[in-house]
Amino acid sequence: MKTPYLYEIEVEWTKDREGLLRSENLQTLGVSSPPEFHGRAGIWTPEHLFVASVNACFMLTFQAIAAIEKLQYSKFKSFATGKLERGERSFLFTEITLKPQLAITTHEDIEKARGILEKAERKCLVSNSIKTSIILEAEISVEL
Amino acid sequence: MKTPYLYEIEVEWTKDREGLLRSENLQTLGVSSPPEFHGRAGIWTPEHLFVASVNACFMLTFQAIAAIEKLQYSKFKSFATGKLERGERSFLFTEITLKPQLAITTHEDIEKARGILEKAERKCLVSNSIKTSIILEAEISVEL
Repeated sequence: MKTPYLYEIEVEWTKDREGLLRSENLQTLGVSSPPEFHGRAGIWTPEHLFVASVNACFMLTFQAIAAIEKLQYSKFKSFATGKLERGERSFLFTEITLKPQLAITTHEDIEKARGILEKAERKCLVSNSIKTSIILEAEISVEL
Repeated sequence: MKTPYLYEIEVEWTKDREGLLRSENLQTLGVSSPPEFHGRAGIWTPEHLFVASVNACFMLTFQAIAAIEKLQYSKFKSFATGKLERGERSFLFTEITLKPQLAITTHEDIEKARGILEKAERKCLVSNSIKTSIILEAEISVEL
């Protein structure tokens, strides 16, 4: 597959404020507006997909850089919170806070690990495609 | 729930270039890099989530405006293609093409429907949060 890479998604209205997201070879996913925008709770929303996209991109970019820089780690988890606020024209995501929890295997790697987390945030292709500010609050532990 | 609205997503590394996306009350979703970035095919990726977020937001914003403007329609489906290209610092989404297929119930509403589709693209809160250009190619049919 050559660049540009293309990603295709179909959405089809089913009922009320709900639909189905489909893409070749991917699990079909129900989608709805969130309850605060007249949708039904318990279903993925564009808002959750957006924050998920940033958080997953951050993790996978971290993994890619960690592999290149040969950082050893045993756990990675990241909590993302997206803040949606009224703008001039409409609502928009003004801020996403990423709180990664990373467990590395040696004390000596703490600063290297912190640098890779910061680089992952800057290099993430989704972060690079959005206007939203990203705040990074990393927690690094050592599991010997 | 008062503004700002907050959306929380956790991602946890499981194995290789894969993880799980979790959020309260939502179906847990596997996520991976796409094969072109060393991941495994057949799993949702940050790239697909990003395009899905834009496409679903477009549909649901269309529905919200159509309800206010009392537009009658019987079908709505939208095909989105996101184009990922190398930028100066890293890859980024330069363009998303949205091809909605809308079936309305009366000939007289064609221009009104077109206007609502265009407004939905402008008002969509995800579109407003991204740098990516959105190209809209609408197809409106009448099903009497």
